[in-house]
Amino acid sequence: MLAVNNVGELAEFCTALHPARTAEFMEGLDAPEAWQVLQFAEPNLRAEIFSYLNYDRQVEMLQEQDDTQVADLITHIPADDAVDLLGELPEARVEHLLALIPAPDRRDIRKLQTFAEGTAGALMTTEVACLNQRLTVREAFEKLSRQAERLETIHYIYIVDDTNHLRGVVSTRNLVSSIGKQERRLGEMMQTDLVTVGAHEDQEHVAQQVAKFNLLAIPVVDADRHLLGIITHDDVIDVVIEVATEDAQRFAAVDPLEDSYARTPILTLTWKRGMWLGILFFAGLFTALALKHYQPELDRFEWMVWFIPLVIGSGGNSGSQSSVLIITAMATGDIQLRDWMTIISREIATGALLGLFLGLVGLAPALYLAPTAWAAMIIPLTIFFVVICGTLTGSVLPLLFKRISWDPALMSNPFVAGINDILGIVVYVTIARLLLGNA
Amino acid sequence: MLAVNNVGELAEFCTALHPARTAEFMEGLDAPEAWQVLQFAEPNLRAEIFSYLNYDRQVEMLQEQDDTQVADLITHIPADDAVDLLGELPEARVEHLLALIPAPDRRDIRKLQTFAEGTAGALMTTEVACLNQRLTVREAFEKLSRQAERLETIHYIYIVDDTNHLRGVVSTRNLVSSIGKQERRLGEMMQTDLVTVGAHEDQEHVAQQVAKFNLLAIPVVDADRHLLGIITHDDVIDVVIEVATEDAQRFAAVDPLEDSYARTPILTLTWKRGMWLGILFFAGLFTALALKHYQPELDRFEWMVWFIPLVIGSGGNSGSQSSVLIITAMATGDIQLRDWMTIISREIATGALLGLFLGLVGLAPALYLAPTAWAAMIIPLTIFFVVICGTLTGSVLPLLFKRISWDPALMSNPFVAGINDILGIVVYVTIARLLLGNA
Repeated sequence: MLAVNNVGELAEFCTALHPARTAEFMEGLDAPEAWQVLQFAEPNLRAEIFSYLNYDRQVEMLQEQDDTQVADLITHIPADDAVDLLGELPEARVEHLLALIPAPDRRDIRKLQTFAEGTAGALMTTEVACLNQRLTVREAFEKLSRQAERLETIHYIYIVDDTNHLRGVVSTRNLVSSIGKQERRLGEMMQTDLVTVGAHEDQEHVAQQVAKFNLLAIPVVDADRHLLGIITHDDVIDVVIEVATEDAQRFAAVDPLEDSYARTPILTLTWKRGMWLGILFFAGLFTALALKHYQPELDRFEWMVWFIPLVIGSGGNSGSQSSVLIITAMATGDIQLRDWMTIISREIATGALLGLFLGLVGLAPALYLAPTAWAAMIIPLTIFFVVICGTLTGSVLPLLFKRISWDPALMSNPFVAGINDILGIVVYVTIARLLLGNA
Repeated sequence: MLAVNNVGELAEFCTALHPARTAEFMEGLDAPEAWQVLQFAEPNLRAEIFSYLNYDRQVEMLQEQDDTQVADLITHIPADDAVDLLGELPEARVEHLLALIPAPDRRDIRKLQTFAEGTAGALMTTEVACLNQRLTVREAFEKLSRQAERLETIHYIYIVDDTNHLRGVVSTRNLVSSIGKQERRLGEMMQTDLVTVGAHEDQEHVAQQVAKFNLLAIPVVDADRHLLGIITHDDVIDVVIEVATEDAQRFAAVDPLEDSYARTPILTLTWKRGMWLGILFFAGLFTALALKHYQPELDRFEWMVWFIPLVIGSGGNSGSQSSVLIITAMATGDIQLRDWMTIISREIATGALLGLFLGLVGLAPALYLAPTAWAAMIIPLTIFFVVICGTLTGSVLPLLFKRISWDPALMSNPFVAGINDILGIVVYVTIARLLLGNA
């Protein structure tokens, strides 16, 4: 269509489909072609299709295309997204673009730029359905019908007093069901117990509040309770996914990537992985020293060496199971710090059962590889205690880190792994000494 | 308040606060007391406060309280939640309760009961804002103002034809901004390219669609495109969190828990952890056999034994980093299967850098513990290659499992761990032979 410059069909293509699907079809085009197609949509739709394009593609377009068109696009996308995108451009270009943008939009963008990434302020949009408490239902509908086009959502209508202090909220549902009472004032029907977040609060806190109160959007206020903006559901789902991804990375001893995996340079990736691998490496060095210390035992019972990876692996694996289970359960609010006694008892009981099971599985190969049946008993016994050590450290450490307000997801796994490596060796040799004598 | 039976204050307590906060304050009460307090709220609010209570507490209340009150409550909570709760009660009791519920609500519940847990059908609510395409804007507002009270959300209004086939959607935002055009028909203003899900599709697919299209709710249809219900944003956020939690559990070699951690019996917990620990255990047994095979080398260079945990740990840790990074990046759509060449090259490059870094860190202790400087070189060289093996297997296996449509989150980590244990030993001894001769 682009080749023959078929204006009608291109405009149709932009209008008929869901913007997300139009964006999907445009993936096959290169950035200048896609930009050309976008020009056939009217400005609001253009901005919406643009918002569904891959982020890298968006940045590429802004970098390449001419200032007037880019400035026009930026005027039509939500201010929070505009700030993110502008952050990718050189500063001189940003200043130049901002000069081309109408003053109210420019002011919104400047305001959002002041909030640090990862805070509520950086996530919010300033385009919020906001009405004075003295308006009636009829007046509210009139005002809204004029505002609606340029707002991201109107699912909640925030009610303010004359000095823009947030006083309450009316849901569109309530407003619609009050259509019969045209002269009722918003101030009389609003819900006054509001859930809000401060502009400088962490985005993780925002996601938790939204999930807890089942909200579609959450208002952001300053210290004096002035309404600054709202954070909408799509941003919240993105944050929930981002937080979950970061936690999974922390579990695997990767310092959370700020960018996507594909956009993170190899050197950054190496650094974020290397720092934790380095810490785990030191734990490994202590294990080496422990083994050196036990060299006399290892000389006497050389078959025991063969089981070293199995023994420390059993402790490490059951430990990381426990810590991940407990950290995720705490994150979802399923268990609380105050339940620590129950949690630890449950983990010890589970560890005993798991240790019994794995110990029995390990008995056959031990009988086969060890010189005597009596010596073979070292293996199941060691595994039993090592697995209990694993579940115990895997439950105590996350609770402890939570207690002292360290991030359990970040700290637990390396510590659990390191401690269990060394503990595994100590338990192993101690049991061997007890069973086979110290001579 | 309850003790002195202060009716006014109790009713005020239920009404003034956000229902989620009222529920929070009620946590300190036991189930019968909380139930008593609930009776002071009018039925819709009562159901809403109830929905914010802890799930276990909800079940407890339904089990203990008398049939009429429970049936009345169930009538007022969304049908999808009602089905979940009824699933916890004995069948005879459920039948008895359903008999007390008005026919339309009963029909909704019966219908939802036919969908398997974890499908779109089980998540949806049947209370949906749904209007005929021939209605005008004015008629739409009239209908909606009557329906709004009993609906969960009215953020999208779904448009159907005379035989209840889903034809399109109108957002409340569009409807409000069309207030000036009272005689316009919904059929003319609706968006017809709709994102829907089938009732039997998996809830993970639902969450992905909602995140991809930035939706507030998604309609559920049958094979003939009849509108069955909608899945609302709060259920979607719950699914996103559930899926993320399950993935984290899979990474840690725990078979995903169906219930919350606190509600899972210890025996179930043991089984879900034991099956994967057992698989990892077999990998450990193979490592033991490999070490037995290399006994002659271990006898000659006994200091090498001390570094075994360090060597296999380096491979396993870098491998699990790679697999978690790649699995989460695939899950968020950040990388695609078709990028496999880029992914693997990046991982090899990162592995080489990490191997170099860890190898250098390991040189000092190796020089200290090994008999000669030449022999000490075994350690950095081995670590270099083992870390590359780790990143290579950690990237190839998830891609491979994805290619053959196995769940990479479930399968990768045990395989990566097992393969790297054995590979680590083989690389270690091979390098030792090359450096120190075979004699």
